[in-house]
Amino acid sequence: MKITALAGGVGGAKLIDGLSRVLNPSELSVIVNTGDDFIHYGLHISPDLDTITYTLGGMANPFSGWGRFEETYNMISSLEVLGGQTWFLLGDKDLAVHLERTRLLNQGYPLSSVTSKFCHAWGIKQLILPMTDNDVRTVIDTVESGELSFQQYFVENKYRPQVKNIHFSGIETASPAPGVLEAIEQADGVIISPSNPWVSIDPISHIPGIGSALKKKIIIAVSPIISGSAIKGPAAKMFSEMGIQPSSVAVFRHYSQYLSGFVLDNIDKSRSHEIPIPTLVTQTIMKSTQDRVSLAQSVIDFLQTL
Amino acid sequence: MKITALAGGVGGAKLIDGLSRVLNPSELSVIVNTGDDFIHYGLHISPDLDTITYTLGGMANPFSGWGRFEETYNMISSLEVLGGQTWFLLGDKDLAVHLERTRLLNQGYPLSSVTSKFCHAWGIKQLILPMTDNDVRTVIDTVESGELSFQQYFVENKYRPQVKNIHFSGIETASPAPGVLEAIEQADGVIISPSNPWVSIDPISHIPGIGSALKKKIIIAVSPIISGSAIKGPAAKMFSEMGIQPSSVAVFRHYSQYLSGFVLDNIDKSRSHEIPIPTLVTQTIMKSTQDRVSLAQSVIDFLQTL
Repeated sequence: MKITALAGGVGGAKLIDGLSRVLNPSELSVIVNTGDDFIHYGLHISPDLDTITYTLGGMANPFSGWGRFEETYNMISSLEVLGGQTWFLLGDKDLAVHLERTRLLNQGYPLSSVTSKFCHAWGIKQLILPMTDNDVRTVIDTVESGELSFQQYFVENKYRPQVKNIHFSGIETASPAPGVLEAIEQADGVIISPSNPWVSIDPISHIPGIGSALKKKIIIAVSPIISGSAIKGPAAKMFSEMGIQPSSVAVFRHYSQYLSGFVLDNIDKSRSHEIPIPTLVTQTIMKSTQDRVSLAQSVIDFLQTL
Repeated sequence: MKITALAGGVGGAKLIDGLSRVLNPSELSVIVNTGDDFIHYGLHISPDLDTITYTLGGMANPFSGWGRFEETYNMISSLEVLGGQTWFLLGDKDLAVHLERTRLLNQGYPLSSVTSKFCHAWGIKQLILPMTDNDVRTVIDTVESGELSFQQYFVENKYRPQVKNIHFSGIETASPAPGVLEAIEQADGVIISPSNPWVSIDPISHIPGIGSALKKKIIIAVSPIISGSAIKGPAAKMFSEMGIQPSSVAVFRHYSQYLSGFVLDNIDKSRSHEIPIPTLVTQTIMKSTQDRVSLAQSVIDFLQTL
């Protein structure tokens, strides 16, 4: 059984972790959002790729969900003394990844090759693919501050500004990274992780060629919105600011053109009748590794019924 | 009494530390070699400026003489796992300096302003000046490997290649950094630290304008060669490879056009008669802070006799 998952950051990484514990490594491919990538201190930072690879490499911080396990912050403490920019928390171990990625990109290697090289070094056997090797950047147009890069919006401004619009700069001319279309075409099913639909999944599905490849497949999505709220991050706030009542049903509608099945939490059971395709109602909140494994297994079982 | 010292890395930093403990901060200016500067991982690294400022800021590693006190190496350990370039040891705290320096240089600030900003942040009250804001790069032409940048020669190749020639790329069009000529002109005396004459002091004195300013002053040099050897680094090896028997007398001859006085170690006392200007024969090996203070005081006392 070959599964391809689409994922953004922390929420997505939890389900990917579960899937990696249920499937053989060769059965799982992950297409990762790079719309959040940005240049900081001259370094190319790929937050979602890092979160996914740190998770699959067993290096993730189990408390925050992002960043590295047993991380130290001596660089950034020293940077603070110098009056440097400390709004983006760069861990010391984390920095190695940004430095080496930047060095290789500057040598002309595409991001997909760099990612593959890092996965090999870390012993990650699943196929981890950035959505594209091109620069696609999520831009958040806000009421208070105009256009902000995603990290400015999300980290520097703690997603407080009100969102007017979201667009993905450079997406019209971007192409899927090598392996992305094949991973979709060869999959028995595609899983959309419980990541932010607006800024984690939309950048992937909007890349020319990816959306049409997805429409040919059996796809299920796991709602990141439970009882009208997101577990983490601005997903629910974004729905509201885009004029849509946040709910798992709203997530279903957001993705409806692609979906064969939809997974929503037990808490939202009463709303499953509003979803006109097969649903799986189960526990989707992942507090423990066992929760991740259980959800991953349920999602795969559900996929096999479609 | 205003003193201006010329300095390179570790040997120079020890005497500068001594001088800083003997003089009021406003009495001491230091002109620092930047010929060793290089770009590594996209970062502008200024090894000699860092050694001097870490020393004066009380942040230097007391064992190695370079790098920072209570440093950690988590970035570079993680970089090694990724197969990155680890020949230049980047500490985690040290990295903050390279990152912030690079960010400010890329914003258009000259190196002298960046250095001044860092000194302010670290509470360093002495005037620390890079020799120039221009890119002057020490190039070592070697028998085995052709031309090497200084760090390639010194760190990556552990100064094993045989030196044929040394030149300072970019020096013809370089100018002294703001404050450098004033620091020389206003000094009651100039001290050439026991740094490597070929690669720490020559780059400073060869910058157009600096040599002629120096010739108008009372200058003394402290020999970095004791009993034919350097305490640390390739100074003696360079003399030999340039066809000159390494000795404190050879150091004197190297600098003779500038000097009013010369300081050599007790060990070399028997050779002091070969030096046709006033000499101070004293203990120049600095193993302790007290040694640094004693030498600094002796050098200042000697200067006042000239």
